[in-house]
Amino acid sequence: MTQVDLNCDLGESFGRYTLGLDDQVIPYITSANIACGFHAGDPEVMQHTVDLAVASHVQLGAHPGLPDLQGFGRRPMKIAPDAAKADVKYQIGALQAFAPTHRLHHVKPHGALYNMAAKDYDLAYKICEGIKEVDPQLMLVGLANSELIRAAKAVGIPYEQEVFADRAYEADGSLVSRSKPGAVIEDSQVAVDRTIKMLQTHQVTTIDGQVISIQPDTICVHGDGVKALAFVKQIHQALTAQGIDVAATQVK
Amino acid sequence: MTQVDLNCDLGESFGRYTLGLDDQVIPYITSANIACGFHAGDPEVMQHTVDLAVASHVQLGAHPGLPDLQGFGRRPMKIAPDAAKADVKYQIGALQAFAPTHRLHHVKPHGALYNMAAKDYDLAYKICEGIKEVDPQLMLVGLANSELIRAAKAVGIPYEQEVFADRAYEADGSLVSRSKPGAVIEDSQVAVDRTIKMLQTHQVTTIDGQVISIQPDTICVHGDGVKALAFVKQIHQALTAQGIDVAATQVK
Amino acid sequence: MTQVDLNCDLGESFGRYTLGLDDQVIPYITSANIACGFHAGDPEVMQHTVDLAVASHVQLGAHPGLPDLQGFGRRPMKIAPDAAKADVKYQIGALQAFAPTHRLHHVKPHGALYNMAAKDYDLAYKICEGIKEVDPQLMLVGLANSELIRAAKAVGIPYEQEVFADRAYEADGSLVSRSKPGAVIEDSQVAVDRTIKMLQTHQVTTIDGQVISIQPDTICVHGDGVKALAFVKQIHQALTAQGIDVAATQVK
Amino acid sequence: MTQVDLNCDLGESFGRYTLGLDDQVIPYITSANIACGFHAGDPEVMQHTVDLAVASHVQLGAHPGLPDLQGFGRRPMKIAPDAAKADVKYQIGALQAFAPTHRLHHVKPHGALYNMAAKDYDLAYKICEGIKEVDPQLMLVGLANSELIRAAKAVGIPYEQEVFADRAYEADGSLVSRSKPGAVIEDSQVAVDRTIKMLQTHQVTTIDGQVISIQPDTICVHGDGVKALAFVKQIHQALTAQGIDVAATQVK
Repeated sequence: MTQVDLNCDLGESFGRYTLGLDDQVIPYITSANIACGFHAGDPEVMQHTVDLAVASHVQLGAHPGLPDLQGFGRRPMKIAPDAAKADVKYQIGALQAFAPTHRLHHVKPHGALYNMAAKDYDLAYKICEGIKEVDPQLMLVGLANSELIRAAKAVGIPYEQEVFADRAYEADGSLVSRSKPGAVIEDSQVAVDRTIKMLQTHQVTTIDGQVISIQPDTICVHGDGVKALAFVKQIHQALTAQGIDVAATQVK
Repeated sequence: MTQVDLNCDLGESFGRYTLGLDDQVIPYITSANIACGFHAGDPEVMQHTVDLAVASHVQLGAHPGLPDLQGFGRRPMKIAPDAAKADVKYQIGALQAFAPTHRLHHVKPHGALYNMAAKDYDLAYKICEGIKEVDPQLMLVGLANSELIRAAKAVGIPYEQEVFADRAYEADGSLVSRSKPGAVIEDSQVAVDRTIKMLQTHQVTTIDGQVISIQPDTICVHGDGVKALAFVKQIHQALTAQGIDVAATQVK
Repeated sequence: MTQVDLNCDLGESFGRYTLGLDDQVIPYITSANIACGFHAGDPEVMQHTVDLAVASHVQLGAHPGLPDLQGFGRRPMKIAPDAAKADVKYQIGALQAFAPTHRLHHVKPHGALYNMAAKDYDLAYKICEGIKEVDPQLMLVGLANSELIRAAKAVGIPYEQEVFADRAYEADGSLVSRSKPGAVIEDSQVAVDRTIKMLQTHQVTTIDGQVISIQPDTICVHGDGVKALAFVKQIHQALTAQGIDVAATQVK
Repeated sequence: MTQVDLNCDLGESFGRYTLGLDDQVIPYITSANIACGFHAGDPEVMQHTVDLAVASHVQLGAHPGLPDLQGFGRRPMKIAPDAAKADVKYQIGALQAFAPTHRLHHVKPHGALYNMAAKDYDLAYKICEGIKEVDPQLMLVGLANSELIRAAKAVGIPYEQEVFADRAYEADGSLVSRSKPGAVIEDSQVAVDRTIKMLQTHQVTTIDGQVISIQPDTICVHGDGVKALAFVKQIHQALTAQGIDVAATQVK
């Protein structure tokens, strides 16, 4: 039976600032990427988010970001791979402290760290090495076909290949840049149908009409607005209707 | 045989800034209180300090502080006990990630957090609760006779009572405020002799001439300057000469 | 003709985080207290807020806070008066840079800094001294009858005494602590009537029934929610209906 | 008479951390680039450094950096030009507040911000625009022949072209990357002689033997170590011996 994980960023509030509809999106997802205090989240938010995810039977994942709260971790920073490795270890450990009796399920780098590592093997390798040093059974969640996946294989840690329902792909498997026309699939039904096809065929048609292989282990969804929330419900329902098992990947 | 732990703050550098003579003080101490990034330390410094402590067979302790790098965690902040608890858990977890195969030995709150909790039972209780939630075998290091020790007993976690070689005591067991004359014992030989007497008698003479009970499990020493370093060597030698076993406390 | 200034905190967003209904409240106020990056606000938010206030013919005020973004500047911190002075100067200067051709109108300390200085003359004095050093014509906005006003007089800077429409007063002119019953006046009409009486009589009835003098130069209003916004409209309309001139104080 | 400005970064301490031999280097320099709190410096350090520079008759310059204390502003960050502009304005204003009766002399971007803007015209343009908005008479200090100088001309602000005594140049006027052999001139006498030749001929021989034009208005020196300090004394003495006037540039 075909299975897919639905992962979503949670716990992005900070101090006086509230962000995200965590309570509303959590019934529809299977894995939570919890912000760890560098780009978003604070210790009390992390505790609250861990408690919410555990109560909702959603897998716990660390979502480490660059040390840039003002930029929400979205501004690329030229950070030495060893510094990134230390930052990732720090954030994984910090999150683990809020769930001492629940093993973390995965680590998904956030924002610019994710995008940089998807294209930079040395950076990706050090991130995966950091994950392995903290816990060799922790899974990496990384962009399908990217350097993150290549690094996870080389380092020898479990991984999930991530696909995006609403984004177009280049022939090399990377996402079409948001600055190009057609990068984002606006019609939610098209996005859903396309995702189901990926799950059934393990292939995707690129923006220039080629068919490439893709391994859709987990789908990235969002809970930061009303529209995003509606899409999560739509895709969850469509996947279930197709007989696809929406469930978190288990480490073998 | 009388035994005592010598603990010292380490890993207080940050980014471009270097602080402390960690390499030079570590041969003389038995427990390291490693800064966790809130008042000092950064992820790379933490990894380096953990590696140094492990290589030197020194016990690893978390040294969580208030979120105040500019004030080095020394400015008292009215923080809700639950916020302090979350901050402490976060920092313990972050440090643990750099030593995944070595169990942390203790947690010693830093600076203003230590001083506030020594006098505020509710704050101390939440800090101890946080330690227990992360790992029930983790020891608290707290000021002898203080609310921190009372809280550790109530929460049910192991603890070490800490004494200061060079500080005068009030009749209630608290340290004489640095603003009062006689608060700091300037003569290092007097400080050493006084500490040895504490270890042999489990008593100390207060600033107003009373004799009170004290349990000296661990002595706080410093490595942030040439004079501090000389004192560590002096007290280490004097303790050994008296047949006192300088060794980290083992959790029973 | 009786005149009163209506001041409101603006520019409290930060990076990815949005806070406050600045665009909606600004037509009803006469002075803006603009966050300066320590407890809220960032440089781009500050530029945007200054532009909005200038376009709306609202006076520009600096709203310096403690260096505690996570606590939104609301957690009291024991900060040396000279450190607070430097922090205040820094933040005033930073804001002034976004309005080089408009002289700042006032400085209102934020949150815990405001509350601490209202009761601590030494702290208040240093804050006022800092304001004077940056610009001797800058007005302090401080709690009526508080140490902030006493310090402004001693330092020799202009000041506005601030009153709160919805808060009860103690006999010494301080605000009744929010933890006590009756501290907040829930009925908005009562709050409005009481404020108008303060403006007409320069007196207020305290929580224990005494009548004390008060100088209501400026009223604090809020724009951080729908209810707050409704109150600003209500009080603005009521003041105007009573023939009170709602206008920013001019430095003589 | 040939004239040159000697500029040096000062005020890089932060809280508990001390950096730089400011007191010792200041007698030999003519312009101070004062850190403004983003990559180094804090408000109290800024006040102290401004006071020191004023007492030493050294010109005051703002030294704005990227918001990255951990990386000391040396890690390139992909920051939107408008965000950089706001960050620069903020930091200039903050520094100005500590010297209300002394007009700032110049603005020199720090570290990665300087290096990025030297090659990125759009970024450089927005930085210069920010400087102009705060004070149209403020001078930019930028790498000679770089995009920063081109932008200053386009925006219409005064500028000083900066040269480095100990760095080799590429044929396009940029500095040879530190990762290449020969990038740094280790022999201080060679560095001094080369700088004097630049001042006398307005030319420099590049690493590949070409002779290019260069306008050496100001020379960057350092005060962060004993060796750096010795070099400042050496170059100051050599320049004076050659009859070159070591003096801050005056805005015409």
